Amino acid sequence: MNTRAELWDRLKETYFFDQETQFGLDVSHVDAESSWWSGMAPKFQTAFKDMAELEKGAIANPDEQRMVGHYWLRNPELSPTAEVRQEIEGALAKILSFAGDVHSGAISPTIGDGKAEGRFEYLLIVGIGGSALGPQFATRALGAPSDPLKPFFFDNTDPDGMAGVLGSIPDLKKTLCVVISKSGGTKETRNGMLVAKAAWASAGIPYAKNFVAVTGADSELDKFARKEGWLERFPMWDWVGGRTSELSAVGLLPAALQGYDIIKMLEGARHMDELTRSPNVQRNPAALLAGCWHFLGEGKGTRAMVVLPYSDRLELFSKYLQQLVMESLGKEKDLAGKIVHQGISVYGNKGSTDQHAYVQQLRDGLNNFFAVFIHVLKDRSGKTDALRSRFCAASFEVEPGVTSSDYLSGFFQGTRRALYESGRQSISILVNEVNEYSVGQLIALFERAVGFYASLVGINAYHQPGVEAGKKAASEVLSLQAKMMSALRDSKQPMSVEEIAKVLGDENAADTVFLTLRHLAANGRVKLVAGGDIFADKYSI
Amino acid sequence: MNTRAELWDRLKETYFFDQETQFGLDVSHVDAESSWWSGMAPKFQTAFKDMAELEKGAIANPDEQRMVGHYWLRNPELSPTAEVRQEIEGALAKILSFAGDVHSGAISPTIGDGKAEGRFEYLLIVGIGGSALGPQFATRALGAPSDPLKPFFFDNTDPDGMAGVLGSIPDLKKTLCVVISKSGGTKETRNGMLVAKAAWASAGIPYAKNFVAVTGADSELDKFARKEGWLERFPMWDWVGGRTSELSAVGLLPAALQGYDIIKMLEGARHMDELTRSPNVQRNPAALLAGCWHFLGEGKGTRAMVVLPYSDRLELFSKYLQQLVMESLGKEKDLAGKIVHQGISVYGNKGSTDQHAYVQQLRDGLNNFFAVFIHVLKDRSGKTDALRSRFCAASFEVEPGVTSSDYLSGFFQGTRRALYESGRQSISILVNEVNEYSVGQLIALFERAVGFYASLVGINAYHQPGVEAGKKAASEVLSLQAKMMSALRDSKQPMSVEEIAKVLGDENAADTVFLTLRHLAANGRVKLVAGGDIFADKYSI
Repeated sequence: MNTRAELWDRLKETYFFDQETQFGLDVSHVDAESSWWSGMAPKFQTAFKDMAELEKGAIANPDEQRMVGHYWLRNPELSPTAEVRQEIEGALAKILSFAGDVHSGAISPTIGDGKAEGRFEYLLIVGIGGSALGPQFATRALGAPSDPLKPFFFDNTDPDGMAGVLGSIPDLKKTLCVVISKSGGTKETRNGMLVAKAAWASAGIPYAKNFVAVTGADSELDKFARKEGWLERFPMWDWVGGRTSELSAVGLLPAALQGYDIIKMLEGARHMDELTRSPNVQRNPAALLAGCWHFLGEGKGTRAMVVLPYSDRLELFSKYLQQLVMESLGKEKDLAGKIVHQGISVYGNKGSTDQHAYVQQLRDGLNNFFAVFIHVLKDRSGKTDALRSRFCAASFEVEPGVTSSDYLSGFFQGTRRALYESGRQSISILVNEVNEYSVGQLIALFERAVGFYASLVGINAYHQPGVEAGKKAASEVLSLQAKMMSALRDSKQPMSVEEIAKVLGDENAADTVFLTLRHLAANGRVKLVAGGDIFADKYSI
Repeated sequence: MNTRAELWDRLKETYFFDQETQFGLDVSHVDAESSWWSGMAPKFQTAFKDMAELEKGAIANPDEQRMVGHYWLRNPELSPTAEVRQEIEGALAKILSFAGDVHSGAISPTIGDGKAEGRFEYLLIVGIGGSALGPQFATRALGAPSDPLKPFFFDNTDPDGMAGVLGSIPDLKKTLCVVISKSGGTKETRNGMLVAKAAWASAGIPYAKNFVAVTGADSELDKFARKEGWLERFPMWDWVGGRTSELSAVGLLPAALQGYDIIKMLEGARHMDELTRSPNVQRNPAALLAGCWHFLGEGKGTRAMVVLPYSDRLELFSKYLQQLVMESLGKEKDLAGKIVHQGISVYGNKGSTDQHAYVQQLRDGLNNFFAVFIHVLKDRSGKTDALRSRFCAASFEVEPGVTSSDYLSGFFQGTRRALYESGRQSISILVNEVNEYSVGQLIALFERAVGFYASLVGINAYHQPGVEAGKKAASEVLSLQAKMMSALRDSKQPMSVEEIAKVLGDENAADTVFLTLRHLAANGRVKLVAGGDIFADKYSI
């Protein structure tokens, strides 16, 4: 642990600061010494080489034999082929033109009898995981009540949740529905799309000309949208992973429709990409970040990353990073096939709110985490200037000479110090303002840090083999449900869980039969004959 | 690890099920054997004894010499004195009567010239930590677009965030503001209240008769509200901790105003309290839960708790539990004063959404967690019945015979199985429906589990000594800011960070001076004279 005077010297020595964009990365509160960084140099050289090859179009995701191209999205000149470049540039042009037409009214809602009239005012985004987290993060970071389209989300397959969202949309007749699925086969998104379609039908509106798709060419969703004559289709490519898709059509289409300056988002990311190509670790913020993760978690993720932006607008960044970091780094095997069980756990919401929730544990309890603070310097964003002047002066003082954002800054500084004094280390990011540009910077910074860290620990950051088992098991549950229903239909008598499992010839299935029957019975789809004890209950149709 | 057949046997042996409320707790996927539970019996007997004494009014929070009385809130007959009982019953009656008057219009918004007219339609809740997390959780769990008052929150001291909230409220003239602070001295809440007051003023509305306070008698906030003639004041007591205050006026007043049945919330909690007073560990769901936490984290919190409700309505439960669990259990010392660094980390959002974010790491990566699943059996809540019938049939099928909630149930079952097969254990809670009653049950279940766990590991669950250091350091930052500004005003020349620190006679303060000046400069409150390098920049007023 360093004294405060030493911390100041360390800050001066190690501060990464980009004068042009006023972006700062402060690793002074990480106790890695220069000798530790020197020892890591060879690994970083490999990481830089891996990244350079990835950017040139190497098969950076060997398991799936795929290129990894999210860096091309903000600098299409880097594309490995002219075709890829054209696709990126074409998609961007199409997004800008489509959003412009929606805003101008050239593209209007289609209501009864196929007539188009009025303006789209609401946006229903249907997606999950990488097809929701980016748009949700951007909405929270960049949204204002004056945005041209107000967004709503279906991000799950919960019918109650979807009904609640539908009930919150002021007018379906003015709603554009954007269905996002890279693979086009994600069941939650398919279900959400079908519910949305049914809702449009029940409101008496022809749905297809109010729906657009973002999906891979010839995916299930793409074919469906084509067949049903949807308003428009936007492309996704197999060389963009879901968790790095915010700067593809997945994120850019909603953002453009909501009125955000997507060119600025791309520019912020491109500039950060340039900074993070430096071969000098100390001058490369993504390398510094990945190095700190390695030091703090001993290269094994022994400490969780607690993300604490002192900014309401960045409240969903930790959720975005949960996917980016945990899905990329949470791997069973390294590239050589050795079992390693890697990963970094991520959680957090925002400061100073979280101080009142769990800083007690962070400071006094388990030392099993490090913090990533984000300090936003400007106390208002361009987005809320108009609102602020309507309600209170920008410099509104809560005490003489003190604004409420002085408190925000003070709480950040105070919490960082209190944590450090009890041996809890932290990284601090300083951004001038939350806007499209800095959102692009933050996304690009963490994308590349994740890539570097994966190289440092020798894993594939670009696949997700672990998610299949759960999907497969879920599909077995659904197929068992169909068999159960059929067995109940055939049976003359009500049957117990174990009797049904026996009839199905699968006694291993009793737990699935039990849970599924409880669910079906609660919804009146099977009848329950109480047996006194829950395991003696019988079921019939 | 147990086979599926063994899991079924374990389920039958160990399932906790309350027939009356259809509440289930399934610990079959936790590999603790009955011999382990037997070994814990003496510790549980102590925990039960501790809890019984707490309920009788013992000083269960020895550091602060306080009683701990959240269980009395839902069963005032348990109160240790007639006075406490009267206070609880009086507050509840006052809440019900006030909410009734607001709904009926007997209490109306006060606009220009002190006239009262129209109805309150919006609610601005100002609070942080325990004064926000409960109301936010309840709003997400129980809200519907048809609720009589639509809630908005100030839960931070971010002026940009507050401006965004104010800009989203359709009409301040129809807005009731509820300011909640137990101590009455929380700075974020004080700042939010002042911003709200200024917003009412700038909209030309007299504020006081549209504001109510929930706070301790004679607190700073209480005195202020009395002096300014606020519409109403509701009590808080020192024997209710912020993190267990949802069933006091803190949570009940907003809930009642929003139209939720607060009697049902209290009844759900009271019934769960009764269940969790059983001295038989296997028949006591809170003891089972606390025991599982102990087993899975080896009594040291070595595994994080990942909370995954398969229900959109329960999306904020993990945030609520972050405070309840981490602030209660994250402690440096045990009751004997020994350094123990206890705690359990908590994160999570909802299934199946999170499957698409980080189940990759959960299944394949670090085995440093256990999951708590919540499976909601009914696929619609009473709250959305009307909405559902407006938009789509309750039994809307996404495939023949399959609803989107069958997928939700299938994904829960599939994910639990896939995790267990790779050695990741989990606890599952089954509730029939998300409603006031089950929200009360869930809150009470975890409150008591936290109390039991604290006894098992010998810590005080009811204080939070670790949060003071950060607040103190923040207050030092603000006092240094005042001195800096004064030094800059006195100086004829622009000064660098180190020069200012020297003038202040505190060279340790350079880091604080630096961060504070960057913040002030970004907001035009000091002038920055660029020095080529950020550490050579000079500042003046």
